[in-house]
Amino acid sequence: MKEAFNVKVYDIEQGRNEVVLSAKQARRMGVDVSGRVELSVGKKKTTAIVNLAHRTVSNHEIGVFWEAVQELKLKNGQKISVSPLRPPASLDAIRRKLDGKTLEPVEVRSIITDLMNGHLATPELAAFIAAVHTRDMTIEETTALTEAIYQSGERLTFKKTKPVLSEHSIGGVAGDRTSMLFVPIMASLDVLVPKTCSRAISSAAGTADVMELFCPVDLTAQKMKAVVEKTNGCLVWGGAVNMAAADDKLIQIRHPLHLDPHPLLLSSILAKKKAEGAKYVILDIPTGIGAKVREVEEARALAKKFRTLGEHLEINVEVTITDGSEPLMPFAGPALEAKEALRTMEGSGWNGLAEKSCQLSGVAIALLRGVSREEGYRLARHRLKDGHALQKFLEIVAAQGGKKEPQSADVQVGKFRATVFAPEEGTVEHVDNRRLSRVARALGAPDDKLGGLHVLAMKGDRVEKGQPICELYASSQDKLDYGLEQIKHFNPVDIEKIVIDVV
Amino acid sequence: MKEAFNVKVYDIEQGRNEVVLSAKQARRMGVDVSGRVELSVGKKKTTAIVNLAHRTVSNHEIGVFWEAVQELKLKNGQKISVSPLRPPASLDAIRRKLDGKTLEPVEVRSIITDLMNGHLATPELAAFIAAVHTRDMTIEETTALTEAIYQSGERLTFKKTKPVLSEHSIGGVAGDRTSMLFVPIMASLDVLVPKTCSRAISSAAGTADVMELFCPVDLTAQKMKAVVEKTNGCLVWGGAVNMAAADDKLIQIRHPLHLDPHPLLLSSILAKKKAEGAKYVILDIPTGIGAKVREVEEARALAKKFRTLGEHLEINVEVTITDGSEPLMPFAGPALEAKEALRTMEGSGWNGLAEKSCQLSGVAIALLRGVSREEGYRLARHRLKDGHALQKFLEIVAAQGGKKEPQSADVQVGKFRATVFAPEEGTVEHVDNRRLSRVARALGAPDDKLGGLHVLAMKGDRVEKGQPICELYASSQDKLDYGLEQIKHFNPVDIEKIVIDVV
Repeated sequence: MKEAFNVKVYDIEQGRNEVVLSAKQARRMGVDVSGRVELSVGKKKTTAIVNLAHRTVSNHEIGVFWEAVQELKLKNGQKISVSPLRPPASLDAIRRKLDGKTLEPVEVRSIITDLMNGHLATPELAAFIAAVHTRDMTIEETTALTEAIYQSGERLTFKKTKPVLSEHSIGGVAGDRTSMLFVPIMASLDVLVPKTCSRAISSAAGTADVMELFCPVDLTAQKMKAVVEKTNGCLVWGGAVNMAAADDKLIQIRHPLHLDPHPLLLSSILAKKKAEGAKYVILDIPTGIGAKVREVEEARALAKKFRTLGEHLEINVEVTITDGSEPLMPFAGPALEAKEALRTMEGSGWNGLAEKSCQLSGVAIALLRGVSREEGYRLARHRLKDGHALQKFLEIVAAQGGKKEPQSADVQVGKFRATVFAPEEGTVEHVDNRRLSRVARALGAPDDKLGGLHVLAMKGDRVEKGQPICELYASSQDKLDYGLEQIKHFNPVDIEKIVIDVV
Repeated sequence: MKEAFNVKVYDIEQGRNEVVLSAKQARRMGVDVSGRVELSVGKKKTTAIVNLAHRTVSNHEIGVFWEAVQELKLKNGQKISVSPLRPPASLDAIRRKLDGKTLEPVEVRSIITDLMNGHLATPELAAFIAAVHTRDMTIEETTALTEAIYQSGERLTFKKTKPVLSEHSIGGVAGDRTSMLFVPIMASLDVLVPKTCSRAISSAAGTADVMELFCPVDLTAQKMKAVVEKTNGCLVWGGAVNMAAADDKLIQIRHPLHLDPHPLLLSSILAKKKAEGAKYVILDIPTGIGAKVREVEEARALAKKFRTLGEHLEINVEVTITDGSEPLMPFAGPALEAKEALRTMEGSGWNGLAEKSCQLSGVAIALLRGVSREEGYRLARHRLKDGHALQKFLEIVAAQGGKKEPQSADVQVGKFRATVFAPEEGTVEHVDNRRLSRVARALGAPDDKLGGLHVLAMKGDRVEKGQPICELYASSQDKLDYGLEQIKHFNPVDIEKIVIDVV
């Protein structure tokens, strides 16, 4: 049953092809809300998910959203043929997973294929994510899922003359710019490190946001490969290279649902590492109160799953469980973090960052060269100290199209500044990752690179009443005021009073 | 953080308040896709779910969909204040259900409250439905859910002088117009039967679609109550009375997902019965191949759950398990079914319909009067035979604002007709509910009342090659042609050959 409709262009993005039919017309065609139709105009064809309208679309009209308008180059009032499509096979697979069945690899692949070709509606994908959350997945299912996600986007391969290594942290720690040191340290040791990074989701800055202070990060996969072939490393934004494309679509639904079931977390990360071409991966799980993983036991269980999935994918995965309860650096906000990371490579920055970067590099060196981790650590420390890491970093920055030899002193930060003082004397008991990010975001981070804050008293530091504990930076008085307002509610520095009470 | 935006009106319905923000602006405000914002203009305030756009909405704009445009009476370019809202508490409840926890009644209520006030996004509701599907619900949870759904819409109460009875079938059987006889039979026995009916979802006609041949069915709850107080009964469309309003919203998500977990099915039906004011309910579970429930054991388990939930709601529920594998009448399509149902009340119609209606009435009479079901059945048969049921039906039709004393002979059916003949001799083995509905829909049913078909050979009938087996009715040659095309693919009458093979 093929019907002709007049196109009503809707200038709205839906993230996939979607159309609106009048409820009456849809009923007549046997199409329900979230059902699928084929659109055809001339020789061009595509599929779309159906929404229903009772009042705003007439029986002869079809509302078409931005994506399909672009794909078919539609205009208002244009005639278009519409025919109903049967539900995709992957819906049965989702249903079987909800019912607690184990899926065959071909079923898992059908879900990712239909996700990519726009045949699955958002509620159906939400049901899939809920199904994985409640029913879990076997290692075979998770492997099939990871392979399918890997296949859905760009994939890099390198000549086999050098080992290909990557690194990833599951995140949650403020100021964790480890990758910015890890990549040049390892790249300076004749290892390929084709690293993709993310932008901030809820934090003050992602590595991509910070790297952008020095160079472009939105490289294509081809350009990324060229940078790695030239310099051994790169630090580019994962959103631009279109690797593991299906994962981005899953995350768009997973994230607002706050559902992070292990098979989806594992496949998300390792599909990207596989797409980078990595054969060796250092995976960091920051653990502790305020981090994504709270208990060491939980981190160990997750680590084991990463290693097992790695084996199935023929990737050598080493997992580090690190203390994630406190920020890694006392800086939050792109420019402040960029400045400090570069300062650390220049030799005078925050030691905590240098320490973690070298420890993770040590694990990588041990994995690649069969030496002890201590020896690996010492080598990494040496590469950092003797300036090889800095030199490699500057090479990468230049190859990505950035400034020639930037220096930390040149990194500009917000000109509107304010200081927050300790309300009483005591010892800093905790600096909170989430509250730190919250205040940094009020100050404009991550979109406004100049906003952020510098914490002047970290865990264990003794403070006097009235002593400065935070320095706030913003690019305007408005933002500074808003940051000052927010820090009243979300003060990231918890000071333990010395005398709690006098009875 | 309250921000002012320029309204961009989107003439599209979403079923709830939704808006579109630029991804950048949303990120700055700390709002994710499916997050919630408060909209305020002057003294008017409302909440809406957030969608994100990358290209079609600028940083100073907010796209507002039809529902919120209506609620706040917005115009293009108007200034509106927008502030982020925290996620609703019900999200925690949904998450806990996904994790297999048992919810407190207050948590269950929070989900229905947030569903009604538009605080839950579609993927979140899909996750809730998936959670109930995978984790099930205790009787306490299901009771709380039913009560909350009941509270969400109109509720009828009647003076306590007469018992209040209702009836419901979980559906799936073509031509099952039992309610159209059950209601007048019981109403003629001084019982109140405030029955709401549905329109067809996937079948050829719902009771509401068929009743509409005789009288209006889109009555308000107040008008419905007046009809029942005048005549003891009614047959009105459930969609107009706004009872159990939350259930309609759940069904909009449940139906396309094809997820019908028992707690949602039970609460959906009994919340509506409770809202009708019923203290006694006859619940029919048609069972068999092609019906919604396939196995009698499954029907018994479901029946037990209905009775238990009824006890918790202080509703006396009797469940009938009936043969649902074949159509109840050989007619499909609103006018054809209306004509035959009325003919049955007039004394000359299809006996299968009279039989089932009187059997269910017998169960109801036994429940209300403490007599045996056989005695109840005989009384019902008598009410039908002596014309009391017909007279009551005509009273109800008149009270709902319909024709005065309609007669079956006056019911018009489609003037474009065609006959389908048996391709070979044999015995009719099966008439398929779903294929029958499919062909009737191709002929225009249910929106076009005149379309449908009459099956001339039912299960067990002997047919000769070339004998007429189906009569098709349509209101235009086009529709008739389409019906004839569809019946080639979906012939509802399966004929078993007498000689299967000759070797």
